[in-house]
Amino acid sequence: TNPETARLPARSTVAILGSGDFSKCLTIRLLRCGFHVVVGSRHPKLASQSFPHVVDVTHHEDAVGKASIVFLAIRREHYSILWDLKHLLEGKILVDVSNNRRVNQYPESNAEYLASLLPDSIAVKGFNVISAWAMQQSCPKDASTQVFICSDSVEARHQIMELARQLNFLPVDMGTLSSSRDIENIPIQLFPGWKGPVLAAVALSIFFFAYAFVRDIIHPYVKYKQSDFYKIPIEMVNRTLPTVAITLLALVYLAGQLAAAHQLYYGTKYRHFPHWLEGWLQSRKQLGLLSFFLAAVHVAYSLCLPMRRSERYLLLNTAYQQVSGNAWNEEEVWRVEMYVSFGIMSLGLLSLLAITSIPSVHSTLNWREFSFIQSTLGYIALLIATFHGLLFGWKRAFEEDAYRFYLPPSFMVALALPVCVILGKVLMLLPCVARKLHRIRRGLDTSHYHIQLYLNGYKNNMPLIV
Amino acid sequence: TNPETARLPARSTVAILGSGDFSKCLTIRLLRCGFHVVVGSRHPKLASQSFPHVVDVTHHEDAVGKASIVFLAIRREHYSILWDLKHLLEGKILVDVSNNRRVNQYPESNAEYLASLLPDSIAVKGFNVISAWAMQQSCPKDASTQVFICSDSVEARHQIMELARQLNFLPVDMGTLSSSRDIENIPIQLFPGWKGPVLAAVALSIFFFAYAFVRDIIHPYVKYKQSDFYKIPIEMVNRTLPTVAITLLALVYLAGQLAAAHQLYYGTKYRHFPHWLEGWLQSRKQLGLLSFFLAAVHVAYSLCLPMRRSERYLLLNTAYQQVSGNAWNEEEVWRVEMYVSFGIMSLGLLSLLAITSIPSVHSTLNWREFSFIQSTLGYIALLIATFHGLLFGWKRAFEEDAYRFYLPPSFMVALALPVCVILGKVLMLLPCVARKLHRIRRGLDTSHYHIQLYLNGYKNNMPLIV
Amino acid sequence: TNPETARLPARSTVAILGSGDFSKCLTIRLLRCGFHVVVGSRHPKLASQSFPHVVDVTHHEDAVGKASIVFLAIRREHYSILWDLKHLLEGKILVDVSNNRRVNQYPESNAEYLASLLPDSIAVKGFNVISAWAMQQSCPKDASTQVFICSDSVEARHQIMELARQLNFLPVDMGTLSSSRDIENIPIQLFPGWKGPVLAAVALSIFFFAYAFVRDIIHPYVKYKQSDFYKIPIEMVNRTLPTVAITLLALVYLAGQLAAAHQLYYGTKYRHFPHWLEGWLQSRKQLGLLSFFLAAVHVAYSLCLPMRRSERYLLLNTAYQQVSGNAWNEEEVWRVEMYVSFGIMSLGLLSLLAITSIPSVHSTLNWREFSFIQSTLGYIALLIATFHGLLFGWKRAFEEDAYRFYLPPSFMVALALPVCVILGKVLMLLPCVARKLHRIRRGLDTSHYHIQLYLNGYKNNMPLIV
Repeated sequence: TNPETARLPARSTVAILGSGDFSKCLTIRLLRCGFHVVVGSRHPKLASQSFPHVVDVTHHEDAVGKASIVFLAIRREHYSILWDLKHLLEGKILVDVSNNRRVNQYPESNAEYLASLLPDSIAVKGFNVISAWAMQQSCPKDASTQVFICSDSVEARHQIMELARQLNFLPVDMGTLSSSRDIENIPIQLFPGWKGPVLAAVALSIFFFAYAFVRDIIHPYVKYKQSDFYKIPIEMVNRTLPTVAITLLALVYLAGQLAAAHQLYYGTKYRHFPHWLEGWLQSRKQLGLLSFFLAAVHVAYSLCLPMRRSERYLLLNTAYQQVSGNAWNEEEVWRVEMYVSFGIMSLGLLSLLAITSIPSVHSTLNWREFSFIQSTLGYIALLIATFHGLLFGWKRAFEEDAYRFYLPPSFMVALALPVCVILGKVLMLLPCVARKLHRIRRGLDTSHYHIQLYLNGYKNNMPLIV
Repeated sequence: TNPETARLPARSTVAILGSGDFSKCLTIRLLRCGFHVVVGSRHPKLASQSFPHVVDVTHHEDAVGKASIVFLAIRREHYSILWDLKHLLEGKILVDVSNNRRVNQYPESNAEYLASLLPDSIAVKGFNVISAWAMQQSCPKDASTQVFICSDSVEARHQIMELARQLNFLPVDMGTLSSSRDIENIPIQLFPGWKGPVLAAVALSIFFFAYAFVRDIIHPYVKYKQSDFYKIPIEMVNRTLPTVAITLLALVYLAGQLAAAHQLYYGTKYRHFPHWLEGWLQSRKQLGLLSFFLAAVHVAYSLCLPMRRSERYLLLNTAYQQVSGNAWNEEEVWRVEMYVSFGIMSLGLLSLLAITSIPSVHSTLNWREFSFIQSTLGYIALLIATFHGLLFGWKRAFEEDAYRFYLPPSFMVALALPVCVILGKVLMLLPCVARKLHRIRRGLDTSHYHIQLYLNGYKNNMPLIV
Repeated sequence: TNPETARLPARSTVAILGSGDFSKCLTIRLLRCGFHVVVGSRHPKLASQSFPHVVDVTHHEDAVGKASIVFLAIRREHYSILWDLKHLLEGKILVDVSNNRRVNQYPESNAEYLASLLPDSIAVKGFNVISAWAMQQSCPKDASTQVFICSDSVEARHQIMELARQLNFLPVDMGTLSSSRDIENIPIQLFPGWKGPVLAAVALSIFFFAYAFVRDIIHPYVKYKQSDFYKIPIEMVNRTLPTVAITLLALVYLAGQLAAAHQLYYGTKYRHFPHWLEGWLQSRKQLGLLSFFLAAVHVAYSLCLPMRRSERYLLLNTAYQQVSGNAWNEEEVWRVEMYVSFGIMSLGLLSLLAITSIPSVHSTLNWREFSFIQSTLGYIALLIATFHGLLFGWKRAFEEDAYRFYLPPSFMVALALPVCVILGKVLMLLPCVARKLHRIRRGLDTSHYHIQLYLNGYKNNMPLIV
């Protein structure tokens, strides 16, 4: 083929079927970038009032005949009208820009439905992630300008990608038309990557809150008829937050360790991880950010403690009851000084991790720097946070009093997982394990190599932070 | 026209008139990207010492003759020298890169002045937003690389946009030469979008500070000769900050509600909003960020309260005066526990809103996610902040004491607007109103449609957060 | 030359030598973007199993013959095998994508070694900053997509830059092959710009910690046998943090003042700064961010003070010892109120400076706005922080007690530099100095002009914040 066919000539004519908002905004964008536009409408005379006068608004048949690229700015429900234009659309590129209202609304994507309806035309999916508002903006400063494009025809895909580039968008090649379902879901998804981590955080919060509630509110009420319910809004919440935060942080690193164990067990990096581990590995950023957020709120709560009336009353009562002039307990002083200072240190480290998750900061780091922050500093933060928890508990783990209803104190339950993860990391740093893992990661073992991995996603080779 | 004319041949020759800093840096950039450069100077021999030897430094007439694109790297005050080159510049593209020292310094923009001076040449405005320093940087990692370009000739505009792309800039099409005034103002403006919101914040701060000053400092001084002036630097400031913050947050959502009311009243979304509402709608991001900033400073002040000497003395005095051994007020305890915890929650939500305002975070969100954060979470933050304020005030609104000089307490004044906005939102969620609004927003009512809206800015159709 | 040669025809054939991970991922990327790929391997039959079937996996000689662009996906240690292909590679473009394991591992860069090995081929360095994982990603949302390219042949460089663009990367022109050493160091450097500032912060921390340790721990121990060692984890750290933070902030602005002094002394801006000053100027952003980070941690420590047991015991003991019912010291109250409020203000300003250091926020500011924030607001922050420090010290500088071991209090040592920098700024604002500096900065003095500056880095003309 001619090497230049992929380059769309500027000032060529583009047809748009439909005369709604998206059609109008797309027209303005095309005109600005030097294209001729012909719009097909069911009521051309009425519709033409809504378009700039340089635009040729005409009947569908007429519009289709004047261009080789046809945008479909009509709803899926009206695709049936294309049936009458079948012969006119033969061999032309049809760009499906439609969106649905719900995720996976139809059994097949709109673009695939279009392709099955008009097998002699070339269906291309794209531009659906751009809102009508963003489409007619000249200066795309704030809005995302990525446009995901897919088609079974490589030639057509490249032509529409070049068109997107000329319209000042950033085209992203998504391969064959089978990706159109994913592309159609993009603009209507609500934080798909956050669902799992948020559910995990909520479940953990409920568990730890209930656990602490039983131990610290129900137990004294049952045993001593002491009503401590005023502790619910702050003290209980502030006991739940750090336990969930440290557990989430431990989960971040546990995923990487399980992946490493999987690689060690099978002796290769080219074997798919199980589905659940795959999803877990991809959620680590979200888990880490949730952990940071909860830790930050925990700090806010802790700092507000002395501000509360209850604290003040307790202090005044202590002051009154105190008869000896020397309140000082050297051990307690040291414990709390260390406890507070470890807490600040681990929050400081976690905030560095959070800052490097901002996309534009992330993109200034090379891989070595990113892994230093996320892996080395992250493990140190986990270690310090664990010490912070241990210092909070101190000797209480060994006191009989602490086992109310035979339940160990919250901090022991919360620290079990982090301690395991830290031990796991120590195990992985042992020279024999580390060396074997390094060999596997460099791809020196190719016995079980499957090329499909590379073509169908290749996800299990993603950077592992362990 | 030939479809390929818009593509500038690499290695073509570009002329630059003027030999100052910008000229030198532009030369280096052009050379790096493979262009030939010829520089026109009044003193070619002297100037040639400052340019790389591969550059042809010659007289103005000579330079102009060798290229079809001519950059003018001279000041507006010297444009008169171009008069002598008039016949040589006929039909050539003149790129005006000049900047002024003040906003709207001259009655007409430099580029328009140039176009009127040389009507037979094609004036293009552009590259003025790039500093000489950024121009000669090879790796534009830190600096903004957007280049705004406008011209009355579509052909010339596209050619210079392509040139900008080849110089590794991101060209933005700004339409006809009438935009040149705006483009020339870009690099010398000082936070144009922040002027209104900052003025609003300052005015509100002065009002609320004066109000609290009269009630809390003047009143006790006049009535009881009690000198509480030490409260000015922290307590008065910390009373002003949250009131201004919550008022600004309410203003963010009030703008959207007024816009919705406007749409409901006229039954269409295609009617211009009044000028003031337009500006207000565009300032919502800044208002929201200011609100967050003031709320964060309010938190800092509040957390520092127990650190102050005054607090300590008051506590010690209370401890001394206390004779009964039981200081405890269950109602007060609950009020403050809830008050503090609502405050933390609303700050946590506001911080999410602030984070999604970072451009690179914003661009990873789709429209649905952005509107969930900014609208749903934002309203919840406003609701919680209002409860936070109500809990602070508690029953004081009903005590006669609180009406010093017949003025109601600050918190009542501050909460009036947020409460109205929340009631307005409730009104809009009523099925009958919500359905009508939805119909209008989907563009189903086209009775009053004006095409000019689309061409002249189309701003009133911008995303509304209500 | 033909103006169109720089544009690479789509669907042309590209050869890759080597069949490792990078080769596979590059193949997938090339296929997706519509190129034909031929892979050269020592064991074509074995290797072909790992590649998609549309890829032609063959012997090195064969592969090289089919394309004019050859990627070398082999290690430097194996470059010797290219010797046998010397005549086949004549006149072809060889793209060196290799990385080393350590910074400056070899006396010459890999690409320069390649060029010396095969002088008749055209060596181009590039793509080494892209990991195999990022290479095969279709949607480069998270990862950096900048690709640094250099070559002695302008033609070849442009061709590979165009190829990079077609592969959806952002090519950055780095000039001649002598830049290849820098390019090879990019992916293996660990925060090169942070080394100096972090070392400075560590050295200052050690000095100020030791100083405070001697004065506040050793002195009472030696003199009064009083053991205050519990102060080490929090109070000593919290005394060190602000002193280091304010010193770093002063260093940021001292660099700019020294640069201005250099310019004033030599009367030109075109003279190189000394090497150490150059490095210092380039580290200002890092110094400022470290200062902000330490100030933020200082705030966290300060806010935690009332939470500590020691604080509580001291308060209780004071409450007990207090016999008079009136603890109040008007001067102390005012001092601490002002001290706390200045501290909050300077942190608020520093946080604005930090936010504008986020790359995507930075790029929305024009030069005037950036300099307003970094210079004007920065100096104000330094001024307020200095007042904060002076209010902390108050009259103690004039008390004999404060000079333990004849050492002045820490705050006096820490404030010496900031006060000097503020005085330096005042000096620079004097009309006679300011006017001369303005003339020099506008480049009106060209007596000592050296064109080399522009070509070899031009770094000393970078924006100065003074």
